[in-house]
Amino acid sequence: MPVDPKKNITDGAVRRWGTAYSPRTAELMTKLVEHLHDFAREANLTPDEWMAAVEWLTRTGQISNEKRQEFILASDVLGLSSLVVELNHRFDERATPATVLGPFHIDGSPAVDFGFDMSEGLPGVPLFIMGQVTDLDGRAVPNAVLDVWQADVDGVYEAQLPEVDEARLRAKYQARPDGSYCVRTILPLGYTIPMDGPVGDLVKQTDISAYRPAHVHFLLDEPGFEKLVTHLFPARTDYLDSDVVFGVKDALITPFVEHQPGPSPDGRTMNRTFLVAHYDFVLQPVPS
Amino acid sequence: MPVDPKKNITDGAVRRWGTAYSPRTAELMTKLVEHLHDFAREANLTPDEWMAAVEWLTRTGQISNEKRQEFILASDVLGLSSLVVELNHRFDERATPATVLGPFHIDGSPAVDFGFDMSEGLPGVPLFIMGQVTDLDGRAVPNAVLDVWQADVDGVYEAQLPEVDEARLRAKYQARPDGSYCVRTILPLGYTIPMDGPVGDLVKQTDISAYRPAHVHFLLDEPGFEKLVTHLFPARTDYLDSDVVFGVKDALITPFVEHQPGPSPDGRTMNRTFLVAHYDFVLQPVPS
Repeated sequence: MPVDPKKNITDGAVRRWGTAYSPRTAELMTKLVEHLHDFAREANLTPDEWMAAVEWLTRTGQISNEKRQEFILASDVLGLSSLVVELNHRFDERATPATVLGPFHIDGSPAVDFGFDMSEGLPGVPLFIMGQVTDLDGRAVPNAVLDVWQADVDGVYEAQLPEVDEARLRAKYQARPDGSYCVRTILPLGYTIPMDGPVGDLVKQTDISAYRPAHVHFLLDEPGFEKLVTHLFPARTDYLDSDVVFGVKDALITPFVEHQPGPSPDGRTMNRTFLVAHYDFVLQPVPS
Repeated sequence: MPVDPKKNITDGAVRRWGTAYSPRTAELMTKLVEHLHDFAREANLTPDEWMAAVEWLTRTGQISNEKRQEFILASDVLGLSSLVVELNHRFDERATPATVLGPFHIDGSPAVDFGFDMSEGLPGVPLFIMGQVTDLDGRAVPNAVLDVWQADVDGVYEAQLPEVDEARLRAKYQARPDGSYCVRTILPLGYTIPMDGPVGDLVKQTDISAYRPAHVHFLLDEPGFEKLVTHLFPARTDYLDSDVVFGVKDALITPFVEHQPGPSPDGRTMNRTFLVAHYDFVLQPVPS
């Protein structure tokens, strides 16, 4: 029979997508159909609004490229990315919590050693981030690799600079056999998300603050442990209460302590003021 | 305060998007956030699935162009397009029901007169579709314009043929002062939706039939009446019960009657077998 009353369209679509060969695909698609239809029905979505959504989605796909992912940004500002992190990282209280990946991670950063300056040649207040990578019981994870990336003092990531050839404010730091690591970089500043695309067009129609608080990204993916994608935030910085991508967690806020010129944590001497953050990354073991 | 427990992410996102300056935008965005989050929570969406969705959406945007709209196709196969039509066309029972627009409509088809052959030069069984355009009480809508488009005998629309310069199987027919119209064309065949893109990739993971039953598209947009976007389906054709885009309605199925060579409805003579469909389009007045 042709599908006629409006409720039947939903039933028909749920029945059809429930024929997916993988049970998980069937589950995802039927739940998607139900929520999509409920949304349209509850909002009484008009054809003009539907067409505006089609055009918005199309522009969001078309503005994306290998260095810009506008759908991730959309997911971020809608709180979906942060929710997916929560749902999938039910870590022990002792473990470092995860937060959003964000749209600016670049694969294949160069491998570097303890104390390497990944900000070489760029302006900004020198910053050392140091500590240890451990398991839940405080035992070292030897030679752990910390994939680190961040924005510059203008809030710009390498991924936003099309003409950059070399790694810029990103590197993979190898910890020492005792799990200790030391990142040398510059203090990042808070920044607005890219506002020149479809996501910005949407945010501009609201009173939402488009800023993220200053942060440095970390990704640790050690055998035997859950992959950890996270940030560190300086304790005193703007926008901690209004992060546009819902990425802030208390346990990721840490003091960035000012030091006068003199000996620095990498064993050298600084001739200007610098900052030091101490942070131990505690990894969650994979279920055995 | 930073947003911590997972329910709070949803509350926080609803609160933020509720600050949209237009009340309607606030309503749409908060309902969207609620359903998107409920979907993720109920499905326990994983990071890999989330990333697969981001990539699928990106490809769907990137494969779209001025002749192909993969997001409309996605909306069609999920039953959303048909639902939006239902929600917004609560017509009188006497009115011709609306159905989905589909992704193949092209603006600006040539204006033609009663009986014009829009299939000129193309193979296929000749088909005349004729009748009257009226209001709910059967009064003629004089000189109504019927924007008509359809696929060829291979199930291919002009919009799918990049190298076509002239209008092909599409035209705007002007009815006579008494509302009567006559379209000359060829019998379209059922066809599969485009299966070479992200929507096809999804459909292939299910047991869903990718076919649409044969149909001819009509769009009537007369002053004083609701815009009518609809199809006509031949009474005996395959896939009427399994239309992949949920577009079939009983009132849109009509006999395509075979006629032997001889006089044709446009006042000429046919030297081969041809088909005639009689259909009166009944328009819904706009609320006064």
